[in-house]
Amino acid sequence: MGRARKSLTHLSESGELRMVDVSGKSPTRRRARASASVVFPAGSLARVLREGSPKGDLFAAARVAGVQAAKRTSELIPLCHPLPLSRVGIDIEVRGGSELAVECEASAEARTGVEMEALTGAAVAALTIYDMVKALGPGIEVRRLRLLEKTGGLSGDWRAAGR
Amino acid sequence: MGRARKSLTHLSESGELRMVDVSGKSPTRRRARASASVVFPAGSLARVLREGSPKGDLFAAARVAGVQAAKRTSELIPLCHPLPLSRVGIDIEVRGGSELAVECEASAEARTGVEMEALTGAAVAALTIYDMVKALGPGIEVRRLRLLEKTGGLSGDWRAAGR
Amino acid sequence: MGRARKSLTHLSESGELRMVDVSGKSPTRRRARASASVVFPAGSLARVLREGSPKGDLFAAARVAGVQAAKRTSELIPLCHPLPLSRVGIDIEVRGGSELAVECEASAEARTGVEMEALTGAAVAALTIYDMVKALGPGIEVRRLRLLEKTGGLSGDWRAAGR
Amino acid sequence: MGRARKSLTHLSESGELRMVDVSGKSPTRRRARASASVVFPAGSLARVLREGSPKGDLFAAARVAGVQAAKRTSELIPLCHPLPLSRVGIDIEVRGGSELAVECEASAEARTGVEMEALTGAAVAALTIYDMVKALGPGIEVRRLRLLEKTGGLSGDWRAAGR
Amino acid sequence: MGRARKSLTHLSESGELRMVDVSGKSPTRRRARASASVVFPAGSLARVLREGSPKGDLFAAARVAGVQAAKRTSELIPLCHPLPLSRVGIDIEVRGGSELAVECEASAEARTGVEMEALTGAAVAALTIYDMVKALGPGIEVRRLRLLEKTGGLSGDWRAAGR
Amino acid sequence: MGRARKSLTHLSESGELRMVDVSGKSPTRRRARASASVVFPAGSLARVLREGSPKGDLFAAARVAGVQAAKRTSELIPLCHPLPLSRVGIDIEVRGGSELAVECEASAEARTGVEMEALTGAAVAALTIYDMVKALGPGIEVRRLRLLEKTGGLSGDWRAAGR
Repeated sequence: MGRARKSLTHLSESGELRMVDVSGKSPTRRRARASASVVFPAGSLARVLREGSPKGDLFAAARVAGVQAAKRTSELIPLCHPLPLSRVGIDIEVRGGSELAVECEASAEARTGVEMEALTGAAVAALTIYDMVKALGPGIEVRRLRLLEKTGGLSGDWRAAGR
Repeated sequence: MGRARKSLTHLSESGELRMVDVSGKSPTRRRARASASVVFPAGSLARVLREGSPKGDLFAAARVAGVQAAKRTSELIPLCHPLPLSRVGIDIEVRGGSELAVECEASAEARTGVEMEALTGAAVAALTIYDMVKALGPGIEVRRLRLLEKTGGLSGDWRAAGR
Repeated sequence: MGRARKSLTHLSESGELRMVDVSGKSPTRRRARASASVVFPAGSLARVLREGSPKGDLFAAARVAGVQAAKRTSELIPLCHPLPLSRVGIDIEVRGGSELAVECEASAEARTGVEMEALTGAAVAALTIYDMVKALGPGIEVRRLRLLEKTGGLSGDWRAAGR
Repeated sequence: MGRARKSLTHLSESGELRMVDVSGKSPTRRRARASASVVFPAGSLARVLREGSPKGDLFAAARVAGVQAAKRTSELIPLCHPLPLSRVGIDIEVRGGSELAVECEASAEARTGVEMEALTGAAVAALTIYDMVKALGPGIEVRRLRLLEKTGGLSGDWRAAGR
Repeated sequence: MGRARKSLTHLSESGELRMVDVSGKSPTRRRARASASVVFPAGSLARVLREGSPKGDLFAAARVAGVQAAKRTSELIPLCHPLPLSRVGIDIEVRGGSELAVECEASAEARTGVEMEALTGAAVAALTIYDMVKALGPGIEVRRLRLLEKTGGLSGDWRAAGR
Repeated sequence: MGRARKSLTHLSESGELRMVDVSGKSPTRRRARASASVVFPAGSLARVLREGSPKGDLFAAARVAGVQAAKRTSELIPLCHPLPLSRVGIDIEVRGGSELAVECEASAEARTGVEMEALTGAAVAALTIYDMVKALGPGIEVRRLRLLEKTGGLSGDWRAAGR
């Protein structure tokens, strides 16, 4: 139980939320990669690619929105620390006939990890695609918003299985 | 093709992004409901519920963050219109042994739908839970961020199958 | 108890926070006035007025910051609705030898009141003064942040006693 | 007079506002604690505690809002520097029969103090409580928004008398 | 002089800033168009067009940034009212051998004009181009940020001469 | 061509936007100065100076807005890094009979330059003046938004010719 308590670092002994104190830590180089999939009903993605092809504004708008959201993670996620991100990148890739795979990589020299920044960037990039294509019909979904990899920090490096 | 072009309303004839002009429309009552699932590795959710139970700050923080994000949707998603939301609500429910189901409902008297507001609220509430429990391990995922229902607007009401 | 529950409109039956649904209401003209006092240790205010007199940037900066904060109330106070403020004004007045009285008035054609907008504007204007004069010493305080008056809305007009 | 001018560091010789240049300073560990009281008319607080008890969303929402506001202090207070806060915490305590005491503690490794961050966090947490209970009646007030303690920095540590 | 005072509507009789009260006005359809030119040293623009051609992310990023900034005008310009923009569009056009002409058009059903929204969108789109090409050298400039046209409102329609 | 590609650092080989990775660089002291001119139709500026003289809120509001915008540059310009600005200052000067010259100076200990911060501050200060005097007529323009000087960083110091 003491171990569990140690794990839920954002809650105090009495269950009250708190921002974890990182002031004793030295900044180290952190990197995280997260992904999300935008999954389309049959036929829709082909139409999107024909009309708003990867070279068009559709993918660029998603990249811009994802980068901007990653930079504002600490405004959106209450207990995230403001971090001086040194880089954010968004990649979008057609996968099979009905999926756009969005990946966000974030880096910082920081006292805490950048997982939430990568996840927030991926989520908002995916939602931006959703918004721009939603007129095709309401059956589009964002699937598997998740961390792929993180490096730096005391807890060591980690990489999702199966990638 | 003309039909496809009509569908991708956020892209101009030449593929350039644009905010859809809603000035000719009258405001009507709009409502949308979206959901997302936070899925935990075996055993983790039980621990979360023991330590940061539904009555604690964990769920409350997710509700606050989701509501605040829904209100800021037009800042995050580039082509969304600023909307005077009349209500945002977030529900969080334990489903089975390894899932927290997050639902966001948004309403407005507006010239355009509130789907993106509901989706953004659900996404940020789910990411807030993720952030507060991520110390338990990196295998947590957000699954199936999607629209459940929308009412109001010219395109008619819609409800996801299987709910 | 049913009456109490009706009063705490921002909490559901089970104690969960919620944004009050205002979609059934018609917009009416709302106005609210709030105030706050910045109270100085003996002698400090005289110095402030000598150096950064009412004609200088000190009061102007507080007015600007108060107006800008009032416009962003719904970003700061989680359950506030985004409101199309039609006016915000900040007045600052020297009162006695050790007090600056800040007043903020907000107006909107809206479905809900503008009390929080007036209070937020007054609070941030007072804190802006505090920030600019805090080098004089740490004994400055903001006192009595409160509503002075509100008009419009179903609950009727109200004016604080003793003013 | 030269001494007074040195004190009002946010105004230039000619009374124009300016952001103090901190680029010559080395970052040191800063901490500040501020408080505010939400004072209720007789009987109201008991009702609030019965309906939206400390374990409910009311206090959690105030804590979230206070933490988020502290992180955005430099957006609200014009001459505040953007600071990489390493921790923000909000405590809320029932004091006597008619007062909720809100305390905000902020920490950073920074070139300037975090007093304004602590004060802004306390103010917005108090206003969030006000918002959620204001339906009980308009006589609630926020009193004594003030600094309790600060440590770090050239001007030395300081603690308010009587605490 | 009375006439001049009427003109400087954002200043009170005593020179204090104020947000103009628009609550007595009925919303009407407003539109404004503004432009800015990004002017390049000889040869630079050709290089930009070769490398980051109009079909690439460069122009798309500027369009996204301009639209997003227009939506946030009331956060940036202190006395602007928050407006429910119904449309924002950014056009970028190569003019001659050394100029990119940026145009922003904004529309709203509002109680006040949308000139500042159009100007802010044009300015930020131009600065976004500047940012992305500034590595080519520091001699790039933004010239003639100005209103081209406005329609709607009591003061009547207006169109810049020479266009 | 390889050389050109090196120059457009914000675009990848395939033309996709990216935030430049600065994590390998050490923070150094950066400073930049930018300017913009607000140019008035004949006679208008004299009226502005008579009514809202340099000692009034007009110039102060522009200074506040410019400082606040400079601090938020990374929110406005998509590929800008969040920077811990150590100082921002805005100067406004009457030049001749029809021009207000706005200058913004920004400084930071950072891994990348502060040119965009200085330009954004100058642009928003100029637009704030524009907003407050636009009731005088629509012929006002912002001219020559440009960098005057930058120091620090690998590419060396630079100063605009003719100043």
